[in-house]
Amino acid sequence: MPKAKKAIVKKSIRKPKMKNAFYAMGGGVTPVINSSALGVIETCKKHEVKVYTGKFGIEGLLTEEMYDMSKETPKTLKALHLRPGSAFGSCRYKLTDINKNKKDYERIIEVCKAHNIGYIFYNGGNDSADTTNKLVKFSKEVGYPLTCIGIPKTMDNDLPVMDNSPGYGSVAKFFATAALETGIDAKAMQTFTEVYIMETMGRHAGWLPAASALAKKKESDPPHMILCPEIVFNEEKFLKKVGECVKKYGFCHIVTSESLVDKKGDFIASTGQFDAFGHVTKGCIAPILANKIRDKYNYSYHVSVVDYIQHSSRHLGCKADLEQAYAVGKAAVELAMAGKNGLIPIIKRKPGKKYKWEIGSTKLENIANTEKNLPRNFITKDGFGITKKCLDYMRPLIQGEDFPPFKDGIPDYPEMKLVMVPKKLKTKYKLR
Amino acid sequence: MPKAKKAIVKKSIRKPKMKNAFYAMGGGVTPVINSSALGVIETCKKHEVKVYTGKFGIEGLLTEEMYDMSKETPKTLKALHLRPGSAFGSCRYKLTDINKNKKDYERIIEVCKAHNIGYIFYNGGNDSADTTNKLVKFSKEVGYPLTCIGIPKTMDNDLPVMDNSPGYGSVAKFFATAALETGIDAKAMQTFTEVYIMETMGRHAGWLPAASALAKKKESDPPHMILCPEIVFNEEKFLKKVGECVKKYGFCHIVTSESLVDKKGDFIASTGQFDAFGHVTKGCIAPILANKIRDKYNYSYHVSVVDYIQHSSRHLGCKADLEQAYAVGKAAVELAMAGKNGLIPIIKRKPGKKYKWEIGSTKLENIANTEKNLPRNFITKDGFGITKKCLDYMRPLIQGEDFPPFKDGIPDYPEMKLVMVPKKLKTKYKLR
Repeated sequence: MPKAKKAIVKKSIRKPKMKNAFYAMGGGVTPVINSSALGVIETCKKHEVKVYTGKFGIEGLLTEEMYDMSKETPKTLKALHLRPGSAFGSCRYKLTDINKNKKDYERIIEVCKAHNIGYIFYNGGNDSADTTNKLVKFSKEVGYPLTCIGIPKTMDNDLPVMDNSPGYGSVAKFFATAALETGIDAKAMQTFTEVYIMETMGRHAGWLPAASALAKKKESDPPHMILCPEIVFNEEKFLKKVGECVKKYGFCHIVTSESLVDKKGDFIASTGQFDAFGHVTKGCIAPILANKIRDKYNYSYHVSVVDYIQHSSRHLGCKADLEQAYAVGKAAVELAMAGKNGLIPIIKRKPGKKYKWEIGSTKLENIANTEKNLPRNFITKDGFGITKKCLDYMRPLIQGEDFPPFKDGIPDYPEMKLVMVPKKLKTKYKLR
Repeated sequence: MPKAKKAIVKKSIRKPKMKNAFYAMGGGVTPVINSSALGVIETCKKHEVKVYTGKFGIEGLLTEEMYDMSKETPKTLKALHLRPGSAFGSCRYKLTDINKNKKDYERIIEVCKAHNIGYIFYNGGNDSADTTNKLVKFSKEVGYPLTCIGIPKTMDNDLPVMDNSPGYGSVAKFFATAALETGIDAKAMQTFTEVYIMETMGRHAGWLPAASALAKKKESDPPHMILCPEIVFNEEKFLKKVGECVKKYGFCHIVTSESLVDKKGDFIASTGQFDAFGHVTKGCIAPILANKIRDKYNYSYHVSVVDYIQHSSRHLGCKADLEQAYAVGKAAVELAMAGKNGLIPIIKRKPGKKYKWEIGSTKLENIANTEKNLPRNFITKDGFGITKKCLDYMRPLIQGEDFPPFKDGIPDYPEMKLVMVPKKLKTKYKLR
C-alpha cells in the first residue's frame, strides 16, 4: 500500500510531455518585432516548451522550414532584442480561401502533427490575426488540439481595440527625430530651397505623419504642415497654406502620408494625372505634391521618400516600445499556458495623468481586418496640423532610447545561429 | 632716460586693437559644419578677436545682418557642437561677376570697414573657396587690409587636395548604418519584395553610395549593387546583374547615386525618357531604376529617396568627423593670426597602417571649382561594387559615435541666443 501511494504522488507531480510551439512573423517588419519573439521564446522556455520559428513566417510552417530556438545560446538570442527586421523572415502569404480550398490548412495540421506542435503564436497585423483566427476554427473542425494566439505588431498603429500597436513607438520616434533634424536643415537652407516634403508610410492611417508633430515646440517650428489620409486632400487649400507658410516662416516643411486621397476616395498618387510617372501607385506622393507647388509658386524644393529607412532604424529604437513588444510576446505564451485559445494580447493605457500601461487580451476576431484611424479631434480644424489631444496620446509612446552597441563605426547587430529543425515529412509542399 | 625706457617697454607689450572676424557658411549643410564654427569662435576668443557670423552666409555680410558671438554663453555655444544644419543659415548666393560688376565686392568692403572686420572665414565647398579667393584679390586691389581664409566642408567628399572633406564622415556613417539596417529588412521581406533601392546625394562623385559598402561583411550581404556616377550607366548590364542577385541571394539591395549618367554624359534622371514624371531632374533616380526592373522582371520593389535625412541626421554624427571639422575651423584662425592670407586648411592622412591625420593648408585657388571623383581602382571591375582599397580609405572616417542628449523622446538640440550686431550703415542693400 505505501508503495502504491508513492507511485500516485509521483505521477501527479510529473508534468505531461509539453507540446512544441511554432512562432512566426507576418507582413511588414518593425524595429521591435524581434523583441516580441524574444518574449515568446524566453517565456516558453520557463514552461519547458520548445519553440520552432518559421522561415519567412507562416510559409515556413507550410514548407516545413523552421528554426530550432533551443539551439540558440543566450548570446545569440540577444540578437533578437537588438536587430531590426524580422530575424526569421516574414511573408505576405495568404492562406487558401478556407471555404473553397482547405489545402493550406490541412498541410499546417500535417506539419503540426509531425513536429508535435500544439501552440501557434502568430505575430502580425490585422491580416495575420485573421489567419490565426481561421486556424483556431479549422483545428477545432478537424479535432486537432491546437492553441492559436496572436501577437500584435504594426508600425502603422492602426490595430483596433488596443491603445497602441507595438512597433509604432519606435517609428514615431524616428519621425519626431527626423522632423526635428530635417526641420533644422530646412530652416538653414531657406534662402535657396523654400519647400521640403518628407513622405511616410502608414497605409490608410495618419499615425506616422502625426508623430512628426512631436518635434514642434512653437508654432513657427517645422513641420508646418502634416497631411494625413483621414483628411480629403484639397489641392487649392493645400497650395494656399504652403504659400502662407513660406511668407510667414521663410520656408515650408511638410510631412505627408503616402496614402492621401481625393474626395472620391482615390489615392492622389494614382489618380491618372501622374500615370506617366510609371506604375508607381504607392509611395512617391511627395514629388507629386512638390510639382504642384513648383507649378504654382516656382519654389525650389527637396523631397525625402523615407520608405524602409523608417522601419529599419533600430539604432533609434524606443525603449517603451521594446518593453511593450516583449510584454505582448510574453503574455501570448501565458495565455496559451492558461488554456486560452483564439486570443491576442493588447496594450491598455491605465487611467490617470501619468502614463502607465498594462497588458489585456481580446478575441482575434476583434482585431482581424479592422483598421483604427486618427480620430477627427486629433487633427486640427484646418486639417493641416495635430491637436494637443493627439500629442498627449503620442508623447509617452516615444520615450526612452536603446542604442545598440557600435563596432567599427556601425551598429553591431549580432547574428543568430538559425539551426533548421530536421524535416519529417517526405512531401515537398508547393506554395501558391 | 629710465622713464623713457619704461614707456617703450609698455608700448611693445600692449597689443594693438584687434580687428573683428566675420564667419559664414555657404552651400548645403552637413551634420558637423557647426563644429567648424565652434573651432573658429573659440580660437578667435583666445586671440581676443570678436566673431560676427553671417545670417544666411555671405548674404548676411551684404545685408549687414550678423550675429554677435560674444553675446553667447558657453552653454548656448554648445549648441554649435550638437546641432545639425547651419546654426546661422546658409546660402547659394553668387557674388556679381567681378569682371563686369564690382557692386557686391564694394559692398562687402563697405560693411567690413563699418564693423572693423579684418578677417573673413568662409566655410564651404569649392564654390565658396572661389568666392573667398576673389575677395582676397579684390581687397588687395582696393587696398583694404582683409585676411580671407577658407574652411573646407562638404558631405560629398569631392574637394581636391585634401584626404577627405569634413562632413563626409558623418554622412558616410549614416549610409553605412542605413545600408546595414535596410539590408536586414530587405532580407527579411524578400518573399514579397525582391528589390530595394536607396538613393544618395553626392553631386558628380560616388563617395556617398560607396560608403554603404562598409555595411558588408560577406559577399552575400547587402548592398548587392552600388551605382556611382563615375561609371557610365549601362541599362543592359544593370538589369542582368539585378536578375543574378535575386537568383543568388533571393533579393537585390541597391544603393545608387542620384547623378548616374549615360554614355553621352547626360543625367539618367533627365534623359527625356521620363519627363512625364514632371520636371524632377535631380534626385528621384531610384523610381526610374525601379520601373526599369519591374518592366523587365515584374519584381516587387521599394525605394528610399533619402535627401535631407542624410545630412540632417546629427544623432548619428561621427566623432572623428566632428573632431576634424573643429580642427579645420581652429586652423583657419591660426593661419590668419600667423599673417597668412588666401589659404584653406586641409586634412592630411599620415603615412602608416594605423589611421592618423594632421592639418595642413593649401591655396584657395587649388580648391576652387575642382571636384575629386572616386578613383577607378576604388570601384570593382564590373562597376557595381567597391574595392578593398576604397573600404580601407573610408573605414577610419566613420569611427566613433557622438549621440546628442535626448529629452522627451527626441534629441535635445539647444538653441543659441543669436543676438544681432547693430547696423551701422544707412543704405539697405538689395541682393541680386
